[in-house]
Amino acid sequence: MTEDASSPKKSAYADAGVDIDAQDRALAQVKKLAKKTFTAGVLTEIGSFGGLFRPDLAGLEDPVLVASADGVGTKLMVARMMGDYSGVGRDLVNHCVNDILVQGARPLFFMDYVGAGVLEPEATVQLVRGVAAGCKENGCALLGGETAEMPGFYGEGDYELVGFIVGLVDRPAILPRSTGDQRVAAGDVLVGLPSAGLHTNGYSLARRVFFDQMGLAPGDPIPGAEDGRPVGRILLDPHLSYLDSIGPLLGHPGLHALAHITGGGLTDNLPRVLPAKTHAFIRFGTWDVPDLFRQIQRHGEVEVEEMLRVFNMGVGMVLVVGRDHLGEVLAGLKKRKAPGFVLGSVQEGGSGVVYDLGSAEAVEEEG
Amino acid sequence: MTEDASSPKKSAYADAGVDIDAQDRALAQVKKLAKKTFTAGVLTEIGSFGGLFRPDLAGLEDPVLVASADGVGTKLMVARMMGDYSGVGRDLVNHCVNDILVQGARPLFFMDYVGAGVLEPEATVQLVRGVAAGCKENGCALLGGETAEMPGFYGEGDYELVGFIVGLVDRPAILPRSTGDQRVAAGDVLVGLPSAGLHTNGYSLARRVFFDQMGLAPGDPIPGAEDGRPVGRILLDPHLSYLDSIGPLLGHPGLHALAHITGGGLTDNLPRVLPAKTHAFIRFGTWDVPDLFRQIQRHGEVEVEEMLRVFNMGVGMVLVVGRDHLGEVLAGLKKRKAPGFVLGSVQEGGSGVVYDLGSAEAVEEEG
Repeated sequence: MTEDASSPKKSAYADAGVDIDAQDRALAQVKKLAKKTFTAGVLTEIGSFGGLFRPDLAGLEDPVLVASADGVGTKLMVARMMGDYSGVGRDLVNHCVNDILVQGARPLFFMDYVGAGVLEPEATVQLVRGVAAGCKENGCALLGGETAEMPGFYGEGDYELVGFIVGLVDRPAILPRSTGDQRVAAGDVLVGLPSAGLHTNGYSLARRVFFDQMGLAPGDPIPGAEDGRPVGRILLDPHLSYLDSIGPLLGHPGLHALAHITGGGLTDNLPRVLPAKTHAFIRFGTWDVPDLFRQIQRHGEVEVEEMLRVFNMGVGMVLVVGRDHLGEVLAGLKKRKAPGFVLGSVQEGGSGVVYDLGSAEAVEEEG
Repeated sequence: MTEDASSPKKSAYADAGVDIDAQDRALAQVKKLAKKTFTAGVLTEIGSFGGLFRPDLAGLEDPVLVASADGVGTKLMVARMMGDYSGVGRDLVNHCVNDILVQGARPLFFMDYVGAGVLEPEATVQLVRGVAAGCKENGCALLGGETAEMPGFYGEGDYELVGFIVGLVDRPAILPRSTGDQRVAAGDVLVGLPSAGLHTNGYSLARRVFFDQMGLAPGDPIPGAEDGRPVGRILLDPHLSYLDSIGPLLGHPGLHALAHITGGGLTDNLPRVLPAKTHAFIRFGTWDVPDLFRQIQRHGEVEVEEMLRVFNMGVGMVLVVGRDHLGEVLAGLKKRKAPGFVLGSVQEGGSGVVYDLGSAEAVEEEG
């Protein structure tokens, strides 16, 4: 920084819409927040050209990096409506953590990108505070990031938020298991973990139903819904991280695969971990589809197939578990206060997901 | 994918502005492009939840990961004006490659994020084709990414492009050198490498000068400029990667530090690698400031200090070189057809950058 940095003289660049000095002040805050997330592997402070991370490779046979990039989608537009950007940062981190968890990896570090027409220091810091909180909760260092002011590109008050995560897994522990008697196979049981709302998917459709079709204001409750909070508040419920509940089960011989239920729903995400010539059989009634999804379906007159491909329907994560180990896995989840429920099984033949909407007979039971 | 994926029935989600099927078709293209960049370390195809990369750690004493996130800024708006998104992907990759190169790292893999209101398949593929080309040129795997349709969030025809890179360096080879007689110190020589235009910084100011103040159309030439091409074309000149020219010098005892000249210019980026109580002394006249910068300065009546803090002024990368090794380093650059020029030195006392605009005396000479 030169002494010009704090000069009160309005610069030509600031005239063009970019206030480097205001950016600098917010950045100083952001650095402070990030520093609080630093783990033993971090070799540098934010602000170097790149972030340095020394992975602990002790005990690993064949270290493999697992990386993922993601955004928050139009949940950001609900955040703007509610004037509350405090939660989307955590949403983003948790989403990314889950995306590498399903390959068996634990997070090492995270990087964020915040874009806006004008980076209002308050909103920027609120966003990054959420990212930093999410990182801290997941034992993941916020190693760096980028904030970009792009006047004329983003609408007033709009913020884009993108995240990148890198984690580590030992090659023999990569999920889904693809060798030996631990591989995913017909007979495996599907265990669901509850979501906490839409997580970060289906917001274009949900906003259309609630705000365009029903004409609700963000502060209105959903008429007839069980949850009496404002619809905007309900829609900001956090994307859960499953690292705490599933982390202790990584490497367990009974855990054959994990599927993070994001865009595409159960319908598109479960088949990603199934071997050829098998399908997932899922029985409704084995878990409570939260009222929020039923409200969207009813008010939006959305077909069931569409619902299952756009929303998580109350299932945020699915564990594919060897039948012999089902009891142990369910007990392990219970110990972490994560109430797993059996929602179906992997079956011979076909592909994709087959839903049983009507049968009164329990399809899968423990053991 | 279920059989619904190719159904002609317009879904409720598509009504809400998101066409999952069109996304799927573009994604298939994108996967093909990415696959062509895959290096030996890649363990997976794109489309798993996260990308898997097995780093080659052979011969490394203490492997350190170096990561960086970046965007292209409002160069994207020039790309839209010109209807040409083919170059910004390469810009982004090269920017990120340089950002970790200055810490001594070579790239392992890259991830991209493309956001738009509607992902027109043609523009999306054009964008990712550029990213893939940049990755291939830098020996870097395009390991995955995210494309997000956010109707109502992005303006029609606008595309956001964000990138994330991870590289590897052996801890003793991290730049800037911070121990022993190879550390940056007063007496070190500053060697510049030419940029190829604005690279990815200063576009808000440049657009304001050319399009708002001068009223040029993107297809117009800049009146009186040496380069007769349309201004929109000139502004899309690529951000150069310096990996090819500097890569062979990584680990050389004479290479003490590197500074990538991005937002903040020489003024803010050089001091990032200088030890306390030293400053960079830079003498104008030691390199040709390209006509483009002089045009912006003249037409926009931008002060020199401002120019030096917003633009690279024709210097894309600065090497901080031990005086005893200067000849070797310059010869090494020449061998890679990278014409390095001595533009100043590190000097005792003070901080930041001191510019000598007027002296006729050569400040630094070889040896």
